[in-house]
Amino acid sequence: MIKTASIISTGDELTSGRTTDTNSNWLADRLSAEGVEVVSVITVGDDSERISWAWQAAAADVVISTGGLGPTADDLTTETVARFTGRKLLLDEEQADAIRGFFDRVGRSMPDNNLKQAMFPEGAVPLPNQRGTAPGYRFDLEGGAVGVVLPGVPHEMKAMFEEQVLPWLRGQADADRRFVSRTFQTFGMSESALDEALLGAIDPARGRLAFRASFPDLSVRVSVAGQPEAAERELDELSKEVHRRLGDAVYAEGDTTMQQEVGQLLSRRGLTLVTAESCTGGLISRRLTDVAGCSDYYTGGIVAYSQSVKEKVLGVSGVTLAMYGEVSEETVAEMALGARRLSGADLAVAVSGIAGPGGGSDDKPVGTVCIGMAGDLFSEGAFSGGEFSAGEDIYLEGGACARTYKLGGNREWIRVLSSQLALDWTRRYLLGLEPWRSGFGVRGGG
Amino acid sequence: MIKTASIISTGDELTSGRTTDTNSNWLADRLSAEGVEVVSVITVGDDSERISWAWQAAAADVVISTGGLGPTADDLTTETVARFTGRKLLLDEEQADAIRGFFDRVGRSMPDNNLKQAMFPEGAVPLPNQRGTAPGYRFDLEGGAVGVVLPGVPHEMKAMFEEQVLPWLRGQADADRRFVSRTFQTFGMSESALDEALLGAIDPARGRLAFRASFPDLSVRVSVAGQPEAAERELDELSKEVHRRLGDAVYAEGDTTMQQEVGQLLSRRGLTLVTAESCTGGLISRRLTDVAGCSDYYTGGIVAYSQSVKEKVLGVSGVTLAMYGEVSEETVAEMALGARRLSGADLAVAVSGIAGPGGGSDDKPVGTVCIGMAGDLFSEGAFSGGEFSAGEDIYLEGGACARTYKLGGNREWIRVLSSQLALDWTRRYLLGLEPWRSGFGVRGGG
Repeated sequence: MIKTASIISTGDELTSGRTTDTNSNWLADRLSAEGVEVVSVITVGDDSERISWAWQAAAADVVISTGGLGPTADDLTTETVARFTGRKLLLDEEQADAIRGFFDRVGRSMPDNNLKQAMFPEGAVPLPNQRGTAPGYRFDLEGGAVGVVLPGVPHEMKAMFEEQVLPWLRGQADADRRFVSRTFQTFGMSESALDEALLGAIDPARGRLAFRASFPDLSVRVSVAGQPEAAERELDELSKEVHRRLGDAVYAEGDTTMQQEVGQLLSRRGLTLVTAESCTGGLISRRLTDVAGCSDYYTGGIVAYSQSVKEKVLGVSGVTLAMYGEVSEETVAEMALGARRLSGADLAVAVSGIAGPGGGSDDKPVGTVCIGMAGDLFSEGAFSGGEFSAGEDIYLEGGACARTYKLGGNREWIRVLSSQLALDWTRRYLLGLEPWRSGFGVRGGG
Repeated sequence: MIKTASIISTGDELTSGRTTDTNSNWLADRLSAEGVEVVSVITVGDDSERISWAWQAAAADVVISTGGLGPTADDLTTETVARFTGRKLLLDEEQADAIRGFFDRVGRSMPDNNLKQAMFPEGAVPLPNQRGTAPGYRFDLEGGAVGVVLPGVPHEMKAMFEEQVLPWLRGQADADRRFVSRTFQTFGMSESALDEALLGAIDPARGRLAFRASFPDLSVRVSVAGQPEAAERELDELSKEVHRRLGDAVYAEGDTTMQQEVGQLLSRRGLTLVTAESCTGGLISRRLTDVAGCSDYYTGGIVAYSQSVKEKVLGVSGVTLAMYGEVSEETVAEMALGARRLSGADLAVAVSGIAGPGGGSDDKPVGTVCIGMAGDLFSEGAFSGGEFSAGEDIYLEGGACARTYKLGGNREWIRVLSSQLALDWTRRYLLGLEPWRSGFGVRGGG
């Protein structure tokens, strides 16, 4: 039974920062999905001593190495493994033929040094490589552990893992134990607020909670291990509890992004959206158009960075701009109304704010951001009966709604958070929830 | 003298494959640029025993850890480090105040568990975090080595490394030996074309070349080690050689991004820019507004995702759209002219294309992208005398210019590359270079 894995990544390009190691992440994800816990990932350069150290350090039921199987002198994995395990290196004729065959197929003759790739530590089981010249292999380590050596070229490594390592791995597994997990995407609660809200929700003996902050997304993953059926049932129950405790802070399950969720809601309701952006400068638009097929519900937008574009294109009145300023609830409300008028979209969301580092004042410091929205529900008064708690000072007039936020962080942070607020306003509007309650500092504990 | 580094990355999201670790790659690159060799990168989950093991295993002059500094129960770095080094954990009042201040600034009250982030192993030097709640710290390890603990949130970690760790690291270096390097940002040549163009440019005994691909940016770094003055002189000479060989494919030196370079050129010339985007959907706009102070030269833009916005807002003629289609040189030329007219900007750049996965046809497959530009230099005929090589089929009429590209890759890749082309057209226009020569496949060897 293989419960733990350790991954070794080899290559100077990794330790010098030239290339991001995506193999380890991919392997970790695949192994986790099989219920195998990755206890460590160790990355070393093309150096025999360090590779040897990595194999010594990697303590797990299976150790999977990628890289260092090329034909050149700086490819050292196999000779290091042989020395480390005290085995001889032997030529495997079958694999040598396969390598010659590969060169034949691409119409080249095999350079001599490629023969090195058909040398394996004595007793190793070769893992053929259909897509390149470097076969991998599997061999026994001390204490019942197993070593798996794969090439570093991602598409070769991945195919060999799926076709040869995974079937072997599953063959080692217990049939009556499975590892299942579910992810919840949230917005509007800080990591510590989530932590507090979920305190005691999950018995550590039954499951595990993990938070992941990938700004502006904050997700919660619940995992359970156990008998297949029992584990699934358990996960369903725990999921209900997460929803009950977090409420509308959960905007989606799984890997769904806020822009995908907004897109799905718009599609489902058959509504179209237009954007009017000042400080976010196209970021909301960029996020909406990340989603393939968005042309069904997103008409486009205006990046009204200068005052003249706000006036000339969006039709914000000069009086409003002079009286309240570019960053004001009155201005974003007019931006949203203007964008809606211009495009004929059903719903318009607008942002104007001071992202900094310059441009702040005592009255409106950096981080002051106004979100505005125009849509039928506002003129129909659907939201007008809502009770506002203290401090919820919002603008709600003439088919538009707006609210001012005070956001922290640097320029990038303020812009990204503003775009998330604008998308979350849209999501909430589409769900019939008061848009202006989106964001931090509204819910208790956040 | 710090010659070697080891990096420890902590987080269940890394060992479970939910997140790719980009911090280690970034740190490895920065450390390499300072002449510090990364001997290992060790990634472990949020598990006290494994974090402790990682600190034991990491043998180098400096050990840099990222992650595990959050306020929740599964953030274990600090208590593990304290136990591993046999130190007490003490509350630092100054850092506690800073964390309270952070919550004040964002208008929230501090949850109790955040106070944990102001606890440090006895004797550690706190490294304040201006951008988040988790300060880092530096402390002495056995045998003269030093440990540096940073948060895992990338923008916090990077700022703290640059502002606090790097100056300290440089202060440890030998006074009569220095490692100097310079980075050249390029666009329009593939990595292998750059490699060929620079073949033999640098004597391995004198300096080193390193390429780094972080799409859409491809940079070349030249480094030299030696006596400070001699090394600087050497680097100057090598830099000239790089410029001579790569020509206008080099768009900037150092960490300058394409959007920063474009902004500097616009500011210097006192010109303003407007954008009209279809398939890039706000990406060009988002990139331009990443740069603080961009309101001096960027008036804003239109994201004309739907045909109706192209017609109604940008004034693209219905005849043009019907005859040539939304993705055509004629349409992007009119989009650029319309955006310029609407905003009064000096220069307009427009993009329309098929980013996929749907929407392609035999005639215009996914990846077909048209870039258009409107500006005085086109009507003044400044570019009209240029000689076009075979295949340079461009549109140049009525104060506008356009060209069709066939780009490869997925939706995201096509969109990012299109935005890079649009920005590079702008850069080239401002330098008096033919904009339409921007991109791959135009220069020899590219």
